[in-house]
Order: sequence, then C-alpha cells, then structure tokens
Amino acid sequence: MQVAVVGAGEYEERRCSLARELGRKIAEDGHVLITGGLGGVMEAACQGALEAGGVTVGILPGEKEAANPFVSVAIGTGMGHGRNAIVVRSADVVIALPGLYGTLSEIALALKMGKVVIDLGDWNVDGMRKAESPEEAMWIAEGMEAAKRAKK
Amino acid sequence: MQVAVVGAGEYEERRCSLARELGRKIAEDGHVLITGGLGGVMEAACQGALEAGGVTVGILPGEKEAANPFVSVAIGTGMGHGRNAIVVRSADVVIALPGLYGTLSEIALALKMGKVVIDLGDWNVDGMRKAESPEEAMWIAEGMEAAKRAKK
Amino acid sequence: MQVAVVGAGEYEERRCSLARELGRKIAEDGHVLITGGLGGVMEAACQGALEAGGVTVGILPGEKEAANPFVSVAIGTGMGHGRNAIVVRSADVVIALPGLYGTLSEIALALKMGKVVIDLGDWNVDGMRKAESPEEAMWIAEGMEAAKRAKK
Amino acid sequence: MQVAVVGAGEYEERRCSLARELGRKIAEDGHVLITGGLGGVMEAACQGALEAGGVTVGILPGEKEAANPFVSVAIGTGMGHGRNAIVVRSADVVIALPGLYGTLSEIALALKMGKVVIDLGDWNVDGMRKAESPEEAMWIAEGMEAAKRAKK
Repeated sequence: MQVAVVGAGEYEERRCSLARELGRKIAEDGHVLITGGLGGVMEAACQGALEAGGVTVGILPGEKEAANPFVSVAIGTGMGHGRNAIVVRSADVVIALPGLYGTLSEIALALKMGKVVIDLGDWNVDGMRKAESPEEAMWIAEGMEAAKRAKK
Repeated sequence: MQVAVVGAGEYEERRCSLARELGRKIAEDGHVLITGGLGGVMEAACQGALEAGGVTVGILPGEKEAANPFVSVAIGTGMGHGRNAIVVRSADVVIALPGLYGTLSEIALALKMGKVVIDLGDWNVDGMRKAESPEEAMWIAEGMEAAKRAKK
Repeated sequence: MQVAVVGAGEYEERRCSLARELGRKIAEDGHVLITGGLGGVMEAACQGALEAGGVTVGILPGEKEAANPFVSVAIGTGMGHGRNAIVVRSADVVIALPGLYGTLSEIALALKMGKVVIDLGDWNVDGMRKAESPEEAMWIAEGMEAAKRAKK
Repeated sequence: MQVAVVGAGEYEERRCSLARELGRKIAEDGHVLITGGLGGVMEAACQGALEAGGVTVGILPGEKEAANPFVSVAIGTGMGHGRNAIVVRSADVVIALPGLYGTLSEIALALKMGKVVIDLGDWNVDGMRKAESPEEAMWIAEGMEAAKRAKK
C-alpha cells in the first residue's frame, strides 16, 4: 500500500511525536509513505519511516529541493496547494493528524475521491474512520485494503 | 472583481434558486463569475449571471466541452478535482453554498490561500464570513475588496 | 470557438505586431481569445482582441494579478509552466507565433491532445498546419472547425 | 540524483532495449529513476532499474493503478498530459529517447525550466546535450551535477 499522512506543517511536539510513530509503523508494515514533503507532521512521519528503513515520498508544492531531509523520493509539482490533490490521489489510505486548512482540503479531496480517510486528529468530518492510535489506524487501513482486494 | 461561487453539483431547487439569484447579482454588479463549470449550483449561478448579461467562467475538471450551457468561457484543465485549487485561486472572493466534499475542499483551499470566503450554506468553518442572502454576500465581498484597495 | 495564441513572452516589434493583428481578427470573427496572460505575444494578442471588443482570457502560471492589462478574464493556476497544458486544452485551435521552449511545449502538448495547431512562426513541427498571415490562419481554423461540426 | 527518462509509450524493441540498459545504469549508479509510469520506454527503463535494485517512480496521467509492473512508487496525478511538467520538474537531469509529441513536450518544458536535457534519440533540439550511449548520458549527467554542486 501507499499510505498518505497529512497534518500541520508547523512543529508541535505532541502531534509530531505521533506522526513519527505512525511513519515508523507504516514502514515496518512494508508500506510506502506519501506526504507533502515539508515540515511538521510531514517531516516527522518521514523521519519515523526512514529510520525504520522505509521509502518516503514528498510531493512538494514547488521545487523538489524544498523537501525535508527525511524524504527519499522528492516530487516537485510546481503547483502550490494544488499539489494536495496529488498527495491524496497517490494514496490507498489517507491518515489525518491535527492540522489546519491545508489538511482539511486534503481530507475533503480524499473523501471526494472515495479514498479511505482515517481520523487521528479529532477532525470529526462525516465519512472519516476514527482511530485512537497509529496501531489502530494501520489496523483499519490494512483491514479495509484486504477487504477491497477480496471483493475484486 | 472575479467572484467564485461553489456548491453541490447536483440539482436541488432551493439551493439552485439561491445560486441563480446570486449569479444575477454578481453580473449586475459588474463582476466576472467563476465556477467549476458543471451542474447544480454551478449551472444555476452561470444561468443567473448570463441572463443578466455577465461573463461566466467554467473551470472544468476535464475537457471544456463538458461545460454547462450557461458558461461563456470554458477552461479545460484535465486535472480532475485538482481543478478546485484553480477555481478558488482565480477568485477575489469565494461564496460557498451548500455542498459536499468537493465544496469543502474549495473552502479549505481558499482559506489556506488567504481568500475572503463567504458562507451562504451553514458551513460554519472557522475563518468564513457568514451571510444570510446573496445581497448580503455581495455587500460583504464589495466592502472587503474596497478595504483591501484602500490599504494599498 | 476558443482560439489560443501562443508565442514568446518578450516584446519584439514584428511578432507582436502580428499577434495584435491576429488578436483583432479573432475577436472580429466572434471568438474567445485564450493566452498565457503574460507579456510579448500574449499581451499583443490580448490588446488586439480587446480593442476589437472581444473577450480575452489569460491563464497565468501564478496569481491572476500578474495578468497583462488587456486580459478580461484572468485564471490564476499557481502551476508554473504546467499551465501550458491548460492553455492548449482550453482551445479549439492553437495558433503558434515565434517563441522559445515554452511555446514549443504548448505546440507539442496541443498536437498530443489532437488539437489543430497552426504555424505562423516557422516552427516546421510535423503535424502543424502552415499559414502565412492572420487571415489565412483564421481561414484554416474556421474551415477545420466547420468540417469537425459537419462530421458530428 | 533523480534522473528522468522520457520517450515513446509504445513498445519498439530497439529503443526499449536502450531504455532498459539506461534504467539499469541509473540504478547501479545509485540514482532514483523518474518516469511517466506507463509502457514502452517508461516501462523498459523501470524494468532495468528495478532489476538492478533501484527505486523507480512513475508519475501517472491518471490513477496510480495504471502504473507498469516495474514501478515501485506510483504517483497518481489525475492531470493527463499536464503531468509531463511534473515528470521533468522532479528530475535533476532528463534523458530523452526517441518519442513523439508527448516526449517533445517534456524536452521543451525541461529546457524551459533550465534542466540539463540529454539527447539519446536524435532530437536535435537546441539546448540539448548529445550522448551516444547510456554510459555517455550518465557520464554527462554526473559531470554536470558535480559541476553544479561545486559552484554552490
């Protein structure tokens, strides 16, 4: 699976610690991590995944050189906030941590595209699946993916 | 001004009647109407504006041929939901009628870009300006634009 | 029809004079002019079309505020050179004046999308239709459009 | 480095054999391969790189599920040919094999963005650097990258 982690671009200890743990879990389970490639939640998730030996993708608003240091594959879209649509379109599952308008746009776009969107951040948007921890988030993600494959 | 009207793509009488009235008001005040170019709220707003002699722009997810019949300038982006970022980036003011995830993504992207976003649909997202009618929405829009120009 | 005029963004008298004449002709024939919204050929074409009472669209790489003064509808894509794909996708016919790499990318994208691309600039790319003057370019454009409609 | 390989999407033995050899060389030298993710040259380059243990990125026009089987990271842009701008923007160096209009648009966009573009396909577009073999192409690419870093 390709799992997108979305959330605020500013550093804040609690949510970044959660993001790093989630990134680690994603990599340990053998999935590719997709992020927006910048700081805050994006950077922490990449750090966790890279430390666990995973592949970390940053889909950047501008040039690829702006990627955080834990991105292993940097995509330079040159599209500004328009790149949010590519972040979620590239994911099988989107996991949302606390964030602001940018994150909300990613949640809305992902739901519009029919993606599974997991709520690790008290978003309470209709259509999201609530999880209490990175482990539970990945439990839901992997279960839904297995169900989707079984249907085909 | 260029004023974007966003809202559900499905026809529903009450919100489409509101959208048509809003489109008419936008054109009468001499502004260009920006929409996503499809049906529902988008079509009703274009109809109202075109009937009042205005210019109506449809920024489409796919080809320009999919524009509703009241679009006078059709932009074919070929970008799917990613075109939502262009709809709001092209607007001085965004007015949101009732809608679903696509509309929510436009509200979030517009707020992220620092645009004035007016709530004509009980969205209650932080940062939006509440209006009770098309007239009040345009009153707010024109007042904020005048204030912005005065500052420069 | 929506007719895109593409060419160099830098001012040069001969090609800009040609672009202005072409813009005027497009508007006089009742078509919407699509351009990249910036200077040089884009600005001259918009000037000619606006002087003739036409609608002029600028599809900009960044914000809509960067449009040249003769643009009547400004689309802010925020996508950099990626906007070139939207310029040509929004056109029924693309007319290419002299230009550089940006213009060449628009010619190639337009041909890839199966658009009619008219050569007013010694491009000599396979698949383009050669014209010697703005009049001949529009003669070809209108003829091909009529043939396309007859087929449907 | 991130190296983009661009070329025709249809299978043809000679150019695909060249692409596979080039993909292998890119991976052996420790670089990430960027492609458009579809067939022909794109698939052959991914196959070569993946066989050599490399990371292969496919930046797709639509959904990520359309990636060829040798893509290890699939980016779903949903942008059609507009994704060509992202393919080249994500690269430090672009290597062009034989192709058609889509490839030509990538060459033109890359040159417009100031990227190093290497000609392995008799393109003869001004501004490209000619190479006779995958080895020579990578020799040029690595040399220019080293020079660029030395300048900073």
